[in-house]
Amino acid sequence: MIDCGEGAQRQMRRSRLSFSRLNHIFISHLHGDHCFGLPGLISTFSLLGRTAPLHIYAPQKLEELMLPWLHYFCHGISFSPVFHPITPENGFSVIYEDRSVTVYSFPLNHRIPCCGFLFREKATLPHIRRDMIDFLNIPVCEINNIKNGADWTTPDGKFFANNRLVYPADPPRSYAYCSDTAPLPENAEILQGIDLLFHESTFAESEILRAAQTFHSTARQAAEFARQARVKQLLIGHYSSRYNDESTLLDEARNIFPNTLAAKENMKIVL
Amino acid sequence: MIDCGEGAQRQMRRSRLSFSRLNHIFISHLHGDHCFGLPGLISTFSLLGRTAPLHIYAPQKLEELMLPWLHYFCHGISFSPVFHPITPENGFSVIYEDRSVTVYSFPLNHRIPCCGFLFREKATLPHIRRDMIDFLNIPVCEINNIKNGADWTTPDGKFFANNRLVYPADPPRSYAYCSDTAPLPENAEILQGIDLLFHESTFAESEILRAAQTFHSTARQAAEFARQARVKQLLIGHYSSRYNDESTLLDEARNIFPNTLAAKENMKIVL
Repeated sequence: MIDCGEGAQRQMRRSRLSFSRLNHIFISHLHGDHCFGLPGLISTFSLLGRTAPLHIYAPQKLEELMLPWLHYFCHGISFSPVFHPITPENGFSVIYEDRSVTVYSFPLNHRIPCCGFLFREKATLPHIRRDMIDFLNIPVCEINNIKNGADWTTPDGKFFANNRLVYPADPPRSYAYCSDTAPLPENAEILQGIDLLFHESTFAESEILRAAQTFHSTARQAAEFARQARVKQLLIGHYSSRYNDESTLLDEARNIFPNTLAAKENMKIVL
Repeated sequence: MIDCGEGAQRQMRRSRLSFSRLNHIFISHLHGDHCFGLPGLISTFSLLGRTAPLHIYAPQKLEELMLPWLHYFCHGISFSPVFHPITPENGFSVIYEDRSVTVYSFPLNHRIPCCGFLFREKATLPHIRRDMIDFLNIPVCEINNIKNGADWTTPDGKFFANNRLVYPADPPRSYAYCSDTAPLPENAEILQGIDLLFHESTFAESEILRAAQTFHSTARQAAEFARQARVKQLLIGHYSSRYNDESTLLDEARNIFPNTLAAKENMKIVL
């Protein structure tokens, strides 16, 4: 989960996301609309008897603010919330890694210290061609070697190169999240060519002064950043409540970066 | 507002309730589902530039828990949240009074200290009979006297008793809120004959042991309390999430106290 505003647990239920599959929460900055959902989420997890630790990556101050609440409201909590401090000042850095994904944080430009996050899937192994395995009677114990690149020679000496035995691996996917921030072109390099970029567009270009004053971006600025970073798709969001619908912002962004989507509540995007 | 769970500000918007008319919040007890909406509500009020103080009546510990959050998240807050400690141990006591209403707190029986609230409207003045005022040519400056009980004698000596000049005042309304609590029959006396009683019914009678263990009430117990207190109408709510709809609980309560309603989100009841 990236950021956890008030009502996040309700939105998870609405989207039928499993509570037990959530193990890592990344908090970009300590404004209420990005973290006020944590006390309720953690309380609910405890009421449900969760035992797995919940890892929370956030500016250091969050732990200090949360602990008195957890001690008081989640007395006898059934699991450990584990706080991992992140420091936007450190620049682009790895904050989490497992065998399938690496998560980086990078500085954004907001009124208070604020991080963006980049999720890069690791390269996966190619897919075995079941038809070839069956045809050549290759034993099961060899499949892992073939996935890892081995060729095959039949008992009567016929050679099959690895690329005849597998389909190519899925390309690793990448997603970045930039909210809240004034435009920060220097991040375009680290996000070059990613599959999907969420970039806030709080305002339309007509409010560019207000955007600058509040360290937010306009839809045009978000789209220019997406173009500069050559991302495959842009998702805009974090709209000011002055906009009754997001069409103005979406039109403005598409004018510069056509492959733009406008985020909506409970929207699902398949990469 | 009575209690302020996560998402309360969103529910206010959905119900089109005016933020600026909310000046007093009464918190029954410090479980998260009764107060986790406060940080977001207060932040939003500050963002909107509210200036009027917001009075919060709650167990003393709430102020201690909230202040570090307010200092950090509502830096430069535009108004004062004023915390008034309430102490369930004090028994039935006045915690707020103005010219139109008196608010009392009284102890409930929950796992942690918990208060019920009784709202008693003060007696209002009778309604002037416009037709009689016009017919008798009574000057405007006399209307306040007549509202306060004066009779009227016409210049030619005809006497009109006050009750011919006014319609009776609306009867003062009364509402009580009892959540969360195991049955507490001793409260029936102080709530005798009130117009509307909200009483939690977390469980159906089939879960009476679970209700006792968790210091909650069953629908039957809520209805028996309503009957004992001779209230005019009962509103049940605070259902356990095990019930997909409230019909079991409503049927059980109506069996004992027919004039029962089941609370739903954003429900509005006119007294």
